[in-house]
Amino acid sequence: MSFLRPRHAGLQTDLYELTMAAAYWASGRSEDSATFELSIRSLPQQRSFLLAAGLEQAVEYLRSLTFTNEEIDFLRQHPSFEFVPREFFDYLGDVKFTGSLSAVPEGTIVFGEEPLLRITAPVIQAQIAETYLLSTLTYQTIVATKAARVVQAAQGRGAVEFGTRRAHGPHAGLFAARASYIAGFAATSNTLAGFDWGIPTVGTTAHSWTMSFADEQESFRRFAELFGDKTVLLIDTYDSVEAVRKAMAAKIPFRGVRLDSGNLVEQCREVRRLLDAGGRNDAIILVSGDMNEYVIRDLIAQGAPIDMFGVGTDLVVSRDAPALNGIYKMVEIEQHGEIRSTAKFSDSKTTLPGRKQIFRSTSPDGKIAYDVLGLESERYPEAEALLQPVMEAGELLSPMPTIEKIRSRAAASLSRLPASLTRLNCDEPYRVQKSAMLTALLETLRSRYVPEIVPTVPQQSRDR
Amino acid sequence: MSFLRPRHAGLQTDLYELTMAAAYWASGRSEDSATFELSIRSLPQQRSFLLAAGLEQAVEYLRSLTFTNEEIDFLRQHPSFEFVPREFFDYLGDVKFTGSLSAVPEGTIVFGEEPLLRITAPVIQAQIAETYLLSTLTYQTIVATKAARVVQAAQGRGAVEFGTRRAHGPHAGLFAARASYIAGFAATSNTLAGFDWGIPTVGTTAHSWTMSFADEQESFRRFAELFGDKTVLLIDTYDSVEAVRKAMAAKIPFRGVRLDSGNLVEQCREVRRLLDAGGRNDAIILVSGDMNEYVIRDLIAQGAPIDMFGVGTDLVVSRDAPALNGIYKMVEIEQHGEIRSTAKFSDSKTTLPGRKQIFRSTSPDGKIAYDVLGLESERYPEAEALLQPVMEAGELLSPMPTIEKIRSRAAASLSRLPASLTRLNCDEPYRVQKSAMLTALLETLRSRYVPEIVPTVPQQSRDR
Repeated sequence: MSFLRPRHAGLQTDLYELTMAAAYWASGRSEDSATFELSIRSLPQQRSFLLAAGLEQAVEYLRSLTFTNEEIDFLRQHPSFEFVPREFFDYLGDVKFTGSLSAVPEGTIVFGEEPLLRITAPVIQAQIAETYLLSTLTYQTIVATKAARVVQAAQGRGAVEFGTRRAHGPHAGLFAARASYIAGFAATSNTLAGFDWGIPTVGTTAHSWTMSFADEQESFRRFAELFGDKTVLLIDTYDSVEAVRKAMAAKIPFRGVRLDSGNLVEQCREVRRLLDAGGRNDAIILVSGDMNEYVIRDLIAQGAPIDMFGVGTDLVVSRDAPALNGIYKMVEIEQHGEIRSTAKFSDSKTTLPGRKQIFRSTSPDGKIAYDVLGLESERYPEAEALLQPVMEAGELLSPMPTIEKIRSRAAASLSRLPASLTRLNCDEPYRVQKSAMLTALLETLRSRYVPEIVPTVPQQSRDR
Repeated sequence: MSFLRPRHAGLQTDLYELTMAAAYWASGRSEDSATFELSIRSLPQQRSFLLAAGLEQAVEYLRSLTFTNEEIDFLRQHPSFEFVPREFFDYLGDVKFTGSLSAVPEGTIVFGEEPLLRITAPVIQAQIAETYLLSTLTYQTIVATKAARVVQAAQGRGAVEFGTRRAHGPHAGLFAARASYIAGFAATSNTLAGFDWGIPTVGTTAHSWTMSFADEQESFRRFAELFGDKTVLLIDTYDSVEAVRKAMAAKIPFRGVRLDSGNLVEQCREVRRLLDAGGRNDAIILVSGDMNEYVIRDLIAQGAPIDMFGVGTDLVVSRDAPALNGIYKMVEIEQHGEIRSTAKFSDSKTTLPGRKQIFRSTSPDGKIAYDVLGLESERYPEAEALLQPVMEAGELLSPMPTIEKIRSRAAASLSRLPASLTRLNCDEPYRVQKSAMLTALLETLRSRYVPEIVPTVPQQSRDR
């Protein structure tokens, strides 16, 4: 996947990561080892779980993290660095990621405060990575989560992703296609997603095709002549029911029809009736246009005979929860050779110190029961430890999973959600409990609040 | 800006654009000239105007629109194209944009139904461009609009963009930086936006810098040692007021302080008092954390002594209006050598036919007064015609404006908004009136609805 290598990886970061890098360097701390964890502070009100996605791009970024001469020259001349010794730029020119990465695999269910990934690396490397990692992981996670809700609402009917045109730029559309496929979508309209990852891509015609002909029926005939039984006719350019009559009268092959507007319950019933009366019980009805999990639930509840949903805007912008409050926080730092746990205690924005692990317990019926958020050094032999090692000394420990494997993992994860969490409006939040050791560490730090230093917790070891 | 050339431009499209391309080709219509217009169906409820942005990237895309052999091979083997004659792929391999483009310049105020751009080109080229153009223009327009509201709410205090980490992927963050700078933001934290466009980039330290030292005061001293009076101290890691005392006691140079949490009105007052008492009336107070136009308005109304606002998540995802209903519709097509205006009449999704122009009238006080949306062939000598020619025969007519020029244009446009439209909650929508000729054309088409063909309106000429 080297064609996905981020352009100018080194500069895809907030400037303060680089000013801090200079300050770490000038303080003689370039090689101090730091540990950062990336988590979502809390679930949006409209979400009862998150489906983690985007790790592959995070890894691609870490493997691409370098500075070219051109980029270094830009920084050298930047007014913020006016007072910074020129030797710093030589240092920066040699930076690449040499640290370790642990993460929950893509397709894992996670909750608020749980780390999606943890990096331990020389502090400058770990610091610079913040901006890119957050935007990559949180966006794909937002979309995968929304997509999982859509798939649940569709109750076995297919869902296809049509959102690139309304995404936050074409790249967002590409990654939305990836994330929704992971979450169980059948396909995407984004052609490049097919090229990049082998995701099934679908699409037939837009209104413009029909409009380009003076006669609607001719537009159907011409398309079906070429695409045969792959044809899905878009029938709502003028009058949907009339269009189906024209299609049937034309005696052309087609796989199904698509409706993109209007009263879908009524129209789909009439369209279904016409198709069946013409002996086309096999023809599918696809609907699109302002679809989301709530609309889909309602259409199904009203008995609309729909076989497949095309979902766009609301999915790719996650309209009812367009951002996650992702954070990337230092949890441990070496200073003068000593390892120290760290937290911040800003009003309502406290972070959890120490290298953590998510310990997940399962009910007898196989559903997930509760999580303990503890220190990595703790042991819960009955529980599953979700964070797994991915990179060591800057190298991948094993090849990243294929998208099909990630999709299977997501399906398995989603099937283990208790029924309460699969409701679109969930009022029984999943239980995530902090371990006694984590709580103790947090309180120790809090009590030392103004003099912030605390000793390392003895059970923690720096190397995994 | 060739380093911004889109990767795999040809495949950055919905698959149905390419299946339609094959069908146009197979119907012998590859060279039929089509005109498409891109517009926003209607303003989101929370917006009283839009600030157009993203044209530069749209042009970059059109100039990059080609298919490599590798991409063609991918399509050749795609199951959707199984029945498509192999000669189509030779045709596609030669595609590049040879059409004309008119557009409203970036930094122009626009409203619902008004075309942001118009393309006239051989139908296959014009069709394929839909997906990329929509996502590029609508996203930057969303952000520029939100940013303009933030700048208005800040009433002359500076606003800086901090949102990449929470944007819909790192690319969205980059383009959000561009769009918000156009709209009047002073700077961005996105380093690559500085490299790519020369946008001022800012940033000093995060909580991690402070947390990396056992002693908060030492972290301040170390940073200021290197950055001198460029230093902005982040003071809310533990206790903001205490942190200011430490900074003053350390007798270090700094430009100002940043607060990222807590009761900002109260804290900013106390911080200001301490700074002033220590003779630092010149030190600025920057606040960040969940900022948006409403919060900023309220902070200012409550008299919080804030000099600068750092705005992130809510801006870059445009939280209260995270998508625009952008459409790209065929308005005219050649068939058998005849030019025909086109529209669709789907329920509540009617589109406006014909090549259109926005005619804007100005009040005696210089404010914009109302727009007439008419046919391009109409003449309103007193009004300003907003759509301007940008490309002809696939070539730029003149170099694209610099970002500073676009930003000046945006400032001029925003200064011409009537007061009612600058309110955050506007209840007097701007008047956009369809011309009699446009209405007549629409009604002619509507009346011929089932037999859709209509004659060309005589006043229209294909070539500009």
